[in-house]
Amino acid sequence: MIAYSPEALLECHRKIQPYLHRTPVLTSRLLNELSGASLFFKCENFQRGGSYKIRGATHAVLRKKEEGALPGVVTHSSGNFAQALSLAAQALEIPAYIVMPESAPEVKKQAVKQYGGIVYECESTLEAREVEAARIGKETGAIFIHPSNDPDVMLGQGTAALELLQDTDTLDFIVAPVGGGGLLGGTALAASYFGKGSVPIGAEPLAVDDAYRSLKAGKIMGNTNTDTIADGLKTVLGSYTFPVIQKHVQTIIRVEETEIIRAMHLIWERMKIVVEPSSAVTLAAVLKAPERFKGKRTGLIISGGNVDLAHLPFI
Amino acid sequence: MIAYSPEALLECHRKIQPYLHRTPVLTSRLLNELSGASLFFKCENFQRGGSYKIRGATHAVLRKKEEGALPGVVTHSSGNFAQALSLAAQALEIPAYIVMPESAPEVKKQAVKQYGGIVYECESTLEAREVEAARIGKETGAIFIHPSNDPDVMLGQGTAALELLQDTDTLDFIVAPVGGGGLLGGTALAASYFGKGSVPIGAEPLAVDDAYRSLKAGKIMGNTNTDTIADGLKTVLGSYTFPVIQKHVQTIIRVEETEIIRAMHLIWERMKIVVEPSSAVTLAAVLKAPERFKGKRTGLIISGGNVDLAHLPFI
Repeated sequence: MIAYSPEALLECHRKIQPYLHRTPVLTSRLLNELSGASLFFKCENFQRGGSYKIRGATHAVLRKKEEGALPGVVTHSSGNFAQALSLAAQALEIPAYIVMPESAPEVKKQAVKQYGGIVYECESTLEAREVEAARIGKETGAIFIHPSNDPDVMLGQGTAALELLQDTDTLDFIVAPVGGGGLLGGTALAASYFGKGSVPIGAEPLAVDDAYRSLKAGKIMGNTNTDTIADGLKTVLGSYTFPVIQKHVQTIIRVEETEIIRAMHLIWERMKIVVEPSSAVTLAAVLKAPERFKGKRTGLIISGGNVDLAHLPFI
Repeated sequence: MIAYSPEALLECHRKIQPYLHRTPVLTSRLLNELSGASLFFKCENFQRGGSYKIRGATHAVLRKKEEGALPGVVTHSSGNFAQALSLAAQALEIPAYIVMPESAPEVKKQAVKQYGGIVYECESTLEAREVEAARIGKETGAIFIHPSNDPDVMLGQGTAALELLQDTDTLDFIVAPVGGGGLLGGTALAASYFGKGSVPIGAEPLAVDDAYRSLKAGKIMGNTNTDTIADGLKTVLGSYTFPVIQKHVQTIIRVEETEIIRAMHLIWERMKIVVEPSSAVTLAAVLKAPERFKGKRTGLIISGGNVDLAHLPFI
């Protein structure tokens, strides 16, 4: 297992860079005026596969490959990680087996196949997915890679914040959405190593505020409800991500569904970019706590741009 | 009146640059694969006011100001030019009077006001708009600026293609949408001065194909129908724009409404940027004539990104 360190993060970045886009950091005068802060949007919606997930996926596959022959990788995901692992494995010429619930939208299955992933369908319970992934691993020798709760994945996700810091000199805050905690954990590591005092902040839908409650309780909490438009943030913290977040993150700001939709609308309308609801949670958090961010240089990780254009929440 | 020349275009660019964003030129591997061409998208959706119109508007206001005291500018528009002239005039500390039909969406009136424009409402006939604009001009001394049929405006619009050429070295084609002809005329001038053989091509909705028919007939033709989703392209060529287009443009590609919507969906989904239907007409034209563009370095002017997010055509 990897030890977290500044050198490990830089080494990870060096390794995965050839497989990634260097995504731009955008600013918006109008959103600065609206928020009272200086906002720097790290646009991972422009990343390969449409989200930051390719960072951690590529790092994990590269690391497994370094450890020896790799007959394949397997994961269960119906979201961005499914596409990301398929793309990462394709670039490294390794088969990627993706377990998806039968009920997942056909368009998502097609996207995975388009990126070379081999889709296995199963029932939509977590148990069924885990059983199927284990069976594929046993049968093919493929190694399981978790979408978030994996140190290599978390370190990979931290390279988005690393680039953001490289491109902005200094930031007072870096706000990242939190679901499984891979992105927030990696962001927190990057901030602590290279942030010169940048404070990492989590942004989470109130409807699935397990990370907020986990930090309060000092142990990993679950969600009873998964009813949020930010479908990338329904997952909960894990054994690797929770300790890192517990150590480095003091603040998680929770936002309402209407605030997420409003923030998403603002980004689309004002910045003319397509971002998914999970990304908009960051701007929603900044707008929710104006006194905290007033006059502050604030980075926001725009996690991705994969949305169903035929079913948007705007009215 | 301005004489068209390479020097005049460069001088125009030099003058208006301080008031503009240098918009990026984006590429998309996926859209290259789909089209068989090498596409370079000049993203004026990221321009101030959300469209290229600020270029011509700023140039026109600056030129009028050079000619002497300028008590104000006036135009009639319910589209992007209304916002652009308001912004341009605001930057130059001159009042902008904008005549809009009563029936225009409230959100468009608000956008103009937000940019400092003074809105006058009138009936929605062209005659009523012209009468009202003339009245305001007489009363306030404001000078009328046409949204497209003005040499200063046309030259200003040509600076988008100028920047595109500067940022891409060489292009085989530059595709621009055509409505009133300011953008296509300016693009054609830029291509002829600095394109080293770049061929300008117009892209037009079949439903309002006045420019196509005007070139065929050798005189300005009208539209009987204005039923297109590309609402920026309903206008017709004018006395200044037609001769320039007649001289420099040989080809106008016409596209169906469904092709415009499909192209717009492709750009949003694959490039993660918000563009308006009028912009998507350019990609629709490229996809309509694959044999012409195969293997060719092709610039596309993405004219703007002002859309009503609550009323999108995607299904």
